[in-house]
Amino acid sequence: MNDTIRSIATIMSDLDGILLFPHVNMDGDALGSASALCLALRSLGKKAYVMISEPVPKNLDFLECGCCITDDSILEDVQLSLQLDCNGLRRIPGRETAWERGRLKGCIDHHATTSKDIRYDFTRIEPKSAATGEIIYRLIKDLGAEITLDIANCIFAAITTDTGNFQHTNTTSRSHEIVGHLYKVEGFNSKVISALIYDRRSKEALMLESAVLGSLDFYADGKLAVGKVTQALLEEYGCTMDEAEGIIQRIMSIDGVEAGCLFKESANNVRASLRGRTYANMEKAAAKFGGGGHVLAAGCSFNLPIEEAEKLLIPELIEAVS
Amino acid sequence: MNDTIRSIATIMSDLDGILLFPHVNMDGDALGSASALCLALRSLGKKAYVMISEPVPKNLDFLECGCCITDDSILEDVQLSLQLDCNGLRRIPGRETAWERGRLKGCIDHHATTSKDIRYDFTRIEPKSAATGEIIYRLIKDLGAEITLDIANCIFAAITTDTGNFQHTNTTSRSHEIVGHLYKVEGFNSKVISALIYDRRSKEALMLESAVLGSLDFYADGKLAVGKVTQALLEEYGCTMDEAEGIIQRIMSIDGVEAGCLFKESANNVRASLRGRTYANMEKAAAKFGGGGHVLAAGCSFNLPIEEAEKLLIPELIEAVS
Repeated sequence: MNDTIRSIATIMSDLDGILLFPHVNMDGDALGSASALCLALRSLGKKAYVMISEPVPKNLDFLECGCCITDDSILEDVQLSLQLDCNGLRRIPGRETAWERGRLKGCIDHHATTSKDIRYDFTRIEPKSAATGEIIYRLIKDLGAEITLDIANCIFAAITTDTGNFQHTNTTSRSHEIVGHLYKVEGFNSKVISALIYDRRSKEALMLESAVLGSLDFYADGKLAVGKVTQALLEEYGCTMDEAEGIIQRIMSIDGVEAGCLFKESANNVRASLRGRTYANMEKAAAKFGGGGHVLAAGCSFNLPIEEAEKLLIPELIEAVS
Repeated sequence: MNDTIRSIATIMSDLDGILLFPHVNMDGDALGSASALCLALRSLGKKAYVMISEPVPKNLDFLECGCCITDDSILEDVQLSLQLDCNGLRRIPGRETAWERGRLKGCIDHHATTSKDIRYDFTRIEPKSAATGEIIYRLIKDLGAEITLDIANCIFAAITTDTGNFQHTNTTSRSHEIVGHLYKVEGFNSKVISALIYDRRSKEALMLESAVLGSLDFYADGKLAVGKVTQALLEEYGCTMDEAEGIIQRIMSIDGVEAGCLFKESANNVRASLRGRTYANMEKAAAKFGGGGHVLAAGCSFNLPIEEAEKLLIPELIEAVS
């Protein structure tokens, strides 16, 4: 049921009028994969667009590449609707009508969980690929298109973001091999792309992070570290909650910390992001409060003031690290 | 004058009793390269040691691999003294006597500036290699030794640290290709090695960083950011100055910051670390106060109180970003 990349290239070679669908809350892999493929298809003389329904995140603005549209009326005939880095209608909300226009439907993804609500004409799902961008790189080669500088930048962004800059366990030999090829593209400069993605944090976000990290609480001989992003802090630094991104990773960089917890207070509830380093079972701790996730990365929510949530959760986390 | 890796492998194949010399203030590339080669030589039945004269840094302790000695009397006959990731006697202080024991002298390095105070029997200097570990990887292959898990870990550490986790501009296609090969070694897990290197910062160091970042001064519409690590702060957080490592990189991650300056106050003087993002000439600014470096990374010192040093340096930096 999984088609080969070569057979997908053969199918796509005969098609024109292609709409590409990255997932909602687009990230570097979703948008990078979509724009890379869009540019490659255009270089082969085809009409192709990336269909989106939300603004491109600021740190990914360079991946737009003139590919994105929010109105699909620009295409008269849609011969293919292709989902990228996701599958199922739930991942492309607000774009269902555009999606249905494709005479053929396809999906290229690296997420293991698959939705059954779309009947695809072809799929390529590779859970072992660190990024959908790795599949797209090979597809572009099989399509016979050139890896231009813009395409190289998109593929690099896809891989570096989904591998946490080559640090996550999903990184493979092939991730590095493909990136090695990108360096051979004239003008390619990974430093420039990394700086665009990673080095454009607001002053305010850094100040917020400093405030949270400067007042961590430690438990169980330093094996558990707990931070809090309160509404009061967000207001003080003029930040929104999405600017708290990355704080939990910083907590996990502390020597001896086996489990990290970051409470995020919103208007209605408190969400706890939980991370384990090696053995602390965060999924189990989160499950006690109706949350879930993976063993080393989980989360749960409380309809309680933050202090009450702490009283409930921290004893469970202390148990998890002991 | 630069020998081929193959010819060096041929020379080394006939030798036994080999002392390897990483540079003083050893880093991941120096120690990783030395231990990797030492293990490979031992696997070929040779006696080999890494000669050091300082403690192995805590975050690199896993690179020791039973290779390091501080007393070279363990070797009766030293047929080769080999410098790694450095050249010249100045880079191996306190080990000159051990160095002189080698009947042959060699050097494998990737630094472009070469010292003339040693007459080497062979050298391999590759300024275009991101890490000496890349040269050592190829040498080990040419020696016919197997890339074991320990060797893979050492080579990975060498490359990831010298490329700033594949983000610096020195990273090349070959850096990624070699790392891609390491992933094929049974049991290799880059995440584990990255965590050992990067995720063992002390609580105190993180608190210090938060305090410094939380009180940055901005000038020139936010294009210049200035931080201070004072003796008072070090005392307050119980840190030494080496724990301020990394703060300047954090400053440079702020959106709109074109130049960053971190004042480091010691008992005798004040040192300013300077970084530029794209155009701000830090070398020129540093040179005005007797310092130096590269265009985008430089430094200078002042025998003045920190406030006086600021008064002198900041106007120059404002000019550099304007």
